[in-house]
Amino acid sequence: MNTRFYNAKILTLADDHKFAITEGELWVKGDTICYIGRAEEDAFAGGAAAEGVMAGSEPIIWDREIDVRGNLLMPGFKNAHTHTAMTFLRSYADDLPLQDWLYQQVFPKEGQLTEDDVYWLNILGIMEYLTSGITSNFDMYFFPPVDAKASADTGFRTVQTSGLNNFGGTVELMEENYHIVNEMSDLTSFIIGFHAEYTTSKELMEGVAGLAQKLKSPVWLHNSETKSEVAECKERWGMTPTQLTDSLGMYEYGGGGYHCVWVEEPDFEIFKKRKLTAVTNPASNLKLASGICPTKRFVDEGISMAIGTDGPASNNCLDMFREMFLTSTLAKVREMDAECVSADEILYMATAGGAHAMQLDDCDSLAVGKKADLIMIDLQQPNMQPENNIVKNLVYSGSKQNVKLTMVNGRVLYEDNRFEIGFDPKEIYAHANRIIRRMQ
Amino acid sequence: MNTRFYNAKILTLADDHKFAITEGELWVKGDTICYIGRAEEDAFAGGAAAEGVMAGSEPIIWDREIDVRGNLLMPGFKNAHTHTAMTFLRSYADDLPLQDWLYQQVFPKEGQLTEDDVYWLNILGIMEYLTSGITSNFDMYFFPPVDAKASADTGFRTVQTSGLNNFGGTVELMEENYHIVNEMSDLTSFIIGFHAEYTTSKELMEGVAGLAQKLKSPVWLHNSETKSEVAECKERWGMTPTQLTDSLGMYEYGGGGYHCVWVEEPDFEIFKKRKLTAVTNPASNLKLASGICPTKRFVDEGISMAIGTDGPASNNCLDMFREMFLTSTLAKVREMDAECVSADEILYMATAGGAHAMQLDDCDSLAVGKKADLIMIDLQQPNMQPENNIVKNLVYSGSKQNVKLTMVNGRVLYEDNRFEIGFDPKEIYAHANRIIRRMQ
Repeated sequence: MNTRFYNAKILTLADDHKFAITEGELWVKGDTICYIGRAEEDAFAGGAAAEGVMAGSEPIIWDREIDVRGNLLMPGFKNAHTHTAMTFLRSYADDLPLQDWLYQQVFPKEGQLTEDDVYWLNILGIMEYLTSGITSNFDMYFFPPVDAKASADTGFRTVQTSGLNNFGGTVELMEENYHIVNEMSDLTSFIIGFHAEYTTSKELMEGVAGLAQKLKSPVWLHNSETKSEVAECKERWGMTPTQLTDSLGMYEYGGGGYHCVWVEEPDFEIFKKRKLTAVTNPASNLKLASGICPTKRFVDEGISMAIGTDGPASNNCLDMFREMFLTSTLAKVREMDAECVSADEILYMATAGGAHAMQLDDCDSLAVGKKADLIMIDLQQPNMQPENNIVKNLVYSGSKQNVKLTMVNGRVLYEDNRFEIGFDPKEIYAHANRIIRRMQ
Repeated sequence: MNTRFYNAKILTLADDHKFAITEGELWVKGDTICYIGRAEEDAFAGGAAAEGVMAGSEPIIWDREIDVRGNLLMPGFKNAHTHTAMTFLRSYADDLPLQDWLYQQVFPKEGQLTEDDVYWLNILGIMEYLTSGITSNFDMYFFPPVDAKASADTGFRTVQTSGLNNFGGTVELMEENYHIVNEMSDLTSFIIGFHAEYTTSKELMEGVAGLAQKLKSPVWLHNSETKSEVAECKERWGMTPTQLTDSLGMYEYGGGGYHCVWVEEPDFEIFKKRKLTAVTNPASNLKLASGICPTKRFVDEGISMAIGTDGPASNNCLDMFREMFLTSTLAKVREMDAECVSADEILYMATAGGAHAMQLDDCDSLAVGKKADLIMIDLQQPNMQPENNIVKNLVYSGSKQNVKLTMVNGRVLYEDNRFEIGFDPKEIYAHANRIIRRMQ
């Protein structure tokens, strides 16, 4: 598929975590962006605009030409922490603190999930991602090869990690899944991870560290999500979760933590030294009353950040616009400082920051040679007007309603409220309703 | 216009701030809901289902019959505090603390606004309300008769209050506007109010209290929005803003406060004694780093609450789904208690709670005899599936993207992303962009 977008505003990445907007065309050849620049009268790449990029190459035959009519093309959002298949528990058990919610509601229901269930529940989550302009997810759930297959089958990009803990999984199985998922498709990859310190024995964690070193992989885990998690870890080991996992040799190839709410003073140094990324999950942290991430401090320290929705059982939706607004404004209210953390910084976290955390460096921004993971934003809606500042409009006023089109790897998967993923939405909803009813 | 909705799930109000869902039909005759109940084969009101309601009356001739196909009809949201025409300042001056933002950025620009500007900027805001399923606003801005005319002309319901303060307005002008707006249209009304204690002299406040008593009107103001506002009021008067305004005789006919973040112990007693409503504006309070409203305490005390977006310059959008999620989850994180404040309570605030604050008791819920201010929610979207709990899906996962139709006073003003307000959206956007560019 070759696609020509024209009459577009195009959001490109400038230096220093800042964005610029240029007007013109963006061309996609196969799965890759091959041209960004001014309009050409001759759409078949013979003109001056395509020089340098297209010089000497065959004219492109367009499968599709899309008039963006003053709307915005921007990189797709990267959802840097989620448990996609938890869609079945949306609005099922809310209004509980994390420990009760997890042990009394979530774990017993999850124990009844089959691989087939997880496949369909993943597709429901992927549909929701597409409506929010999310083009890839960093997913931790049961059956990573099944999760990955749901992505590959629908055309969605996924990075899987393991949720290994004392109640399920082995280091050997993780190694197997690492190879299966990394080799499955150019849309699927796998990075080493485990659930969390509070659910995982030291022996298992040592096994994870050993595997990460063997495979030269970063390591990811839920880290410092709740106050009690950190207090209990310190009681058990005399160290914070960050200190403990570092001491076990987890981070030779980097990695990072999900949530990172109750990070302590020495932890910031470890994040910097090991070049770890802090993924914030603000909606989930509010809803489970876990706390508010020290986003300003991470930014001030120069520590990389990304944004995730967490799973739909705790959020309860998969909407990066809501997460961006929360990441920004919770930083402001936490510090009682309305000036802190700019809109550009937030948008960077939600796009390039996530891509770097997920080792998707070729999907981080709109530039020639990058993968065509992009979205079209409808600026001709009241919440995007007037156009005083498009980046601020996106971060402070943007909504799923503004997502007109979502393209992953050069393929349009969602456009004008319709899905192009090879499945009928009604069939997917029926699967989800049947699965949760079966468990009641 | 007579409209028959069929094949619908219908959200009705049960006792105790709780909602119920029934399946069937909802009929609108003119501006009023005339039937809610089971489906009839004969749509012309001759059948048994319509007995009691329609007995003895003429058969209804439907102008339109809408197949809701398992989607949801629910009452429209009431935006209980806003400054609609501030749309021109969206994303213009962000990331500033309230006092700097207000005095250095907002006031100088507002000084340049003409009545004509305010008319067009109101319509932009009304369009945004409709996309979010908001069917009425409680608006405080310059030129209330102009604000009200923009509502009447587009078919939108508005309750205006005055923004009187030391820099603009008089009590006499407020009295004049009270009559003009209350008599303009059945879509427009006016309740007494002023900007805030920190911008208004004691003499003016005494005038407001006198006018409220004369007209038997409630009184509204920005109350205890920031910590410094309350501290400075106590320094000036030895009383909190709530105590001071009560001592001036403001609340003989009730009323309430916008924001209500830094409410102190004696204030809760005054809210209860005077039956005042606390309107929370969570997005604005986060973005201006003002603080987090003690929502749980208000609810526990049995004090009425409603939800508002505040103006688009400080939010920066007009989205009641975002406000509902924030009201709920900020209460949870403030109290570090994931169980506090139920989803039903939040939805009640956003609908009936707002209606009662705005003296729109005939618009508070879907019931026979109530005004047809209602919306259709698309449940056939991934963020609304599975249907474990529709109220929780609305509050925790709902989005503007789910709003398929917005009806005010029996007229469809928005449907499937199209506006039926008598104006071309492009024309409205052009007005807004021209106004802010003129000021630069």
